[in-house]
Amino acid sequence: MRRSHLKHVVWGLAALVLVTLLSGFSLFGGKETPGGDASKALVPPGKLDEYYLFASGGHSGQVFVYGVPSMRRIRTIPVFTPDPAWGYGYDEETKAMLGGLTWGDVHHPALSETNGEYDGRWLFVNDNANNRVARINLKTFYTEQILGPVPNIMGPHSATFVTPNTEYLFMGSRFATPVPAGTYVPIQEFKSKYYGVLAGVKIDPKSGHMELAWELLLPPWSFDLGDAGKKVSDGWYFLTTYNTEEAYETLEVGASARDRDFIVMVNWKEAEKAAAAGKFQTIAGAKVIDPVKVPGIVYLMPVAKSPHGVDVAPDGRHIAAAGKLQPTVTVYDFEKIKSAIEAKKFAGEERGLPILDYEAVRVAEVPVGLGPLHTQFDDKGYAYTSLFIDSAIVKWKIGEWKVIDKVDVHYNVGHLCAAEGDTTSPDGKWLVSLNKMAKDRFLPVGPSHPENLQLIDISGDKMKLVYESPVDPEPHYAQMIKADKIKPEVVFYKDVKRPNSVWDPKDARVVRKGNRVDAYIVAIRSRFIPDRVEVNEGDDVYFHLTNNDMDQDITHGFGIPLYNVDMQVEPGETKTLHVKATKPGVYPFYCTNFCSALHQEMQGWFLVKPKK
Amino acid sequence: MRRSHLKHVVWGLAALVLVTLLSGFSLFGGKETPGGDASKALVPPGKLDEYYLFASGGHSGQVFVYGVPSMRRIRTIPVFTPDPAWGYGYDEETKAMLGGLTWGDVHHPALSETNGEYDGRWLFVNDNANNRVARINLKTFYTEQILGPVPNIMGPHSATFVTPNTEYLFMGSRFATPVPAGTYVPIQEFKSKYYGVLAGVKIDPKSGHMELAWELLLPPWSFDLGDAGKKVSDGWYFLTTYNTEEAYETLEVGASARDRDFIVMVNWKEAEKAAAAGKFQTIAGAKVIDPVKVPGIVYLMPVAKSPHGVDVAPDGRHIAAAGKLQPTVTVYDFEKIKSAIEAKKFAGEERGLPILDYEAVRVAEVPVGLGPLHTQFDDKGYAYTSLFIDSAIVKWKIGEWKVIDKVDVHYNVGHLCAAEGDTTSPDGKWLVSLNKMAKDRFLPVGPSHPENLQLIDISGDKMKLVYESPVDPEPHYAQMIKADKIKPEVVFYKDVKRPNSVWDPKDARVVRKGNRVDAYIVAIRSRFIPDRVEVNEGDDVYFHLTNNDMDQDITHGFGIPLYNVDMQVEPGETKTLHVKATKPGVYPFYCTNFCSALHQEMQGWFLVKPKK
Repeated sequence: MRRSHLKHVVWGLAALVLVTLLSGFSLFGGKETPGGDASKALVPPGKLDEYYLFASGGHSGQVFVYGVPSMRRIRTIPVFTPDPAWGYGYDEETKAMLGGLTWGDVHHPALSETNGEYDGRWLFVNDNANNRVARINLKTFYTEQILGPVPNIMGPHSATFVTPNTEYLFMGSRFATPVPAGTYVPIQEFKSKYYGVLAGVKIDPKSGHMELAWELLLPPWSFDLGDAGKKVSDGWYFLTTYNTEEAYETLEVGASARDRDFIVMVNWKEAEKAAAAGKFQTIAGAKVIDPVKVPGIVYLMPVAKSPHGVDVAPDGRHIAAAGKLQPTVTVYDFEKIKSAIEAKKFAGEERGLPILDYEAVRVAEVPVGLGPLHTQFDDKGYAYTSLFIDSAIVKWKIGEWKVIDKVDVHYNVGHLCAAEGDTTSPDGKWLVSLNKMAKDRFLPVGPSHPENLQLIDISGDKMKLVYESPVDPEPHYAQMIKADKIKPEVVFYKDVKRPNSVWDPKDARVVRKGNRVDAYIVAIRSRFIPDRVEVNEGDDVYFHLTNNDMDQDITHGFGIPLYNVDMQVEPGETKTLHVKATKPGVYPFYCTNFCSALHQEMQGWFLVKPKK
Repeated sequence: MRRSHLKHVVWGLAALVLVTLLSGFSLFGGKETPGGDASKALVPPGKLDEYYLFASGGHSGQVFVYGVPSMRRIRTIPVFTPDPAWGYGYDEETKAMLGGLTWGDVHHPALSETNGEYDGRWLFVNDNANNRVARINLKTFYTEQILGPVPNIMGPHSATFVTPNTEYLFMGSRFATPVPAGTYVPIQEFKSKYYGVLAGVKIDPKSGHMELAWELLLPPWSFDLGDAGKKVSDGWYFLTTYNTEEAYETLEVGASARDRDFIVMVNWKEAEKAAAAGKFQTIAGAKVIDPVKVPGIVYLMPVAKSPHGVDVAPDGRHIAAAGKLQPTVTVYDFEKIKSAIEAKKFAGEERGLPILDYEAVRVAEVPVGLGPLHTQFDDKGYAYTSLFIDSAIVKWKIGEWKVIDKVDVHYNVGHLCAAEGDTTSPDGKWLVSLNKMAKDRFLPVGPSHPENLQLIDISGDKMKLVYESPVDPEPHYAQMIKADKIKPEVVFYKDVKRPNSVWDPKDARVVRKGNRVDAYIVAIRSRFIPDRVEVNEGDDVYFHLTNNDMDQDITHGFGIPLYNVDMQVEPGETKTLHVKATKPGVYPFYCTNFCSALHQEMQGWFLVKPKK
């Protein structure tokens, strides 16, 4: 081999090695990663995801917890719908919390925030169907409180959105009705006797406890998504409204007649002051403020007709909103808004509420494409807008106001969820597209298709579709939080003073007082103690079950055939369930949650002696 | 550079390139494929899975449909529990099917078979809690029939297992009780007046309709898993039993006292003949055969104590069973069983039922490890047994009777599911380990952990753990079928003669007869026609909703706030829902399932005029 030739070979080989090393490509088969970018979603056995994604479960009434990037559903959290998998809605406490309603329509989850950052304490969700909001404790992943049905509000689609220090969440009515709920007024009087209502729900900073603080009486418009101001716009709440036409028939036409609807701006600190100053009337127990009579609380900003989302950028200054029938996103500048309000420079009023001059407050109309619904942000000043009709997501830059990238999604995206996307400092890492249609993307499962959650890598210049995951009906919105911000308990605290708990099998007992029987039962691998509860037909029986296994993941269930009884107790937990012993006979009770090698033997007897 | 040195460099670099090329490793970070074997589970966007996996949902009452190998949950099928995501249990038809019970305990799904192969027509599941079985139509993925509560049986854990041509499924009681259910007998008379019962449920070969054919009255033992014979053993049904001690207290000790329990063998063709010949007594409407009085139906085979699974190999000849407290799997040979029965060579009897001689019928005791529960098979003569206590799966060969491979799973595996695993020709491709504990395998989600489905590649000599997927409580068993065997409908048939359907908006109407109001409503993007239903307080209102959108994936929902109304209609579907108009006032009805850009506008009004 000639030396010069050898040199070529050396450099050739060296280059090959270098390319191999630098590119991260193997020289086999083209791409390094089987499945292409999909490998970014791979979380191999034993490894954990980077983010939690909390997705609303829509009319399932529940919340779905996903891991990102694997897009695996790790947990369902029952909220508004009974779920025997967790015995939710069966024991006395959760049954009472549900109040006889068996479903909800969960739209917009909101993680609690401290200084505009997700703090990992609570998750709030709304029930568009039954005028409620709920709080989930992220220590336990249990629903801890359901507030409502809140009076006067019908269909709080416009919820939950929290303020930067979780002082408030807001509920805006989608359906104008007479107030209070239950009042009958002919529909022909819609314009004069039907109202929209926005509620301020105060959140206790220590416990997360929610209570209705005040309500605003608004025109009979349909209120939609909202977002709380942050930084410079802190103290304000923004929400969209459609059907300012006040149509009550053939809404798909009637509510799209005008060219413009409004962004409603609420100065919630002023509302708070008005409530404190007694400037309200009481309707169905709620303090209802009329913002026409109390100026300084509500302002309107024109927006292209039928808007869905309004989103405040991480800077707190730029506010993006879009009418879903116009191919642009309008961006408003809060500094201009502030100046206009301070200068009282209005373009007119509607229903007694001042309208800001569109030209004076908007800084851009970004041409994005068809059906713009919702905008999220990253850490580099980019915005991402979902296009329902185009089935795409566009990326555009704040300040430059033009689209620089577009990616197709499958199909008909509603909301977007970026990593830490609603905080003052998004991570710019992952974006999940919540697509309403899946059609041909997964194995067919009959006429009811899943929805499709698609994972997009937004860390580079170009958006990259990485993975997709089917999901049961029907997430509408989600929030994504860094995994290390949530530190759940893995077993319950063994509270020796907890009423009805039994921690020593010797204290397990059945106590009768008249027709009431209290059975204090210990569940411990693999026994119920006592394993026999004998009662008389017609007795009121209270089963108090305590799980004495303090090892994580040792759940015990307690089912009674034909009595529709199902409890689930986690390690260290106590639950109480009441049954009326209406059916005589012999019924086993048994552990319904696999707990040990002798789980199958974990059973006892509920014997009901017939009346003579 | 000296030439010899250069040579070394050349060969060094060449070797490096070669290693890179041949090993399939990139030189970065070890393996070529990020996630190692996990990449085998990758199904990139737009690609479909190879198999459907139907997993029982345990006490959730539902069935979960997964894609394999991605392990994505594509669909939940509501079966025994109302689920508003599909409006299941809300409309009149499904509400009636559930019969007032709000949960079930689904253990063992069984795909329908033709000639011992899954035929993709139906899926049958049991409800251990309420003595029922259900059929899911795999054209629609809808639950079509719920049979039960079946009389006399309490806790049919031992179901559903179908015969090779889906002639029957069997339900065996786990809990001995007096018969019929509802009879009170003191527990002290357990041995003499409590019974186990096995039901033969006949399946119509055309429609899949199930009906109770006959029952066998058995000793007060706990019956567990079963498997139908196939090929040479066709016509027989095998099931395990524990608690032949007939203990009724402290079962975890009492039911483990004897060294041996039994495999119960049922000649179901003989049972069928006995029923036809009138050799039964009628109890609660069921034809109940006493197998002591009608010999030739039931035989017992000794097995190590407290067995869980019994599994018939694809050859139909070898039958594997294991006591969960003994570290071996016993394999029986059906040829020997047949000979023993024909020769009437018995080792004795128990409760009047003949016991086969263990030594005469078993061909091997395979030493597998601790806590053997369930065995599956592949296409090469290998068997795979789950070990609950060892948290492992072992692979052993039929005929060689020794373990040749073992893989750890995480943690505490119950059942296994192999691709086409219960057929006469398993695929030998994938094995899913249904693990009861997940502990630290996923992001923590509070005291209630998910279970863990782990995917194992069994196509090579060694089993390889590929991926893992969390799952809500609680799959007990699953079956996996090749994707192309299922051909679902993606929209419903537009049946113009279907009662209550409306296919022309002109026919949409509200009809009053006395206090009954029938509203025939068309749902079509993005309207309800009519969009107003006005009634009087106290009226009985029937909403008949027809989805006129015939495009796939265009579901419409129908929710009424505070009236607990939730319907979901798929393209071409009609549903009926009744409400009593008890609450006066103005209530919107609205589409709860995102359907179009103007979905938000798809609403109408339910006005209830108060009584004077």
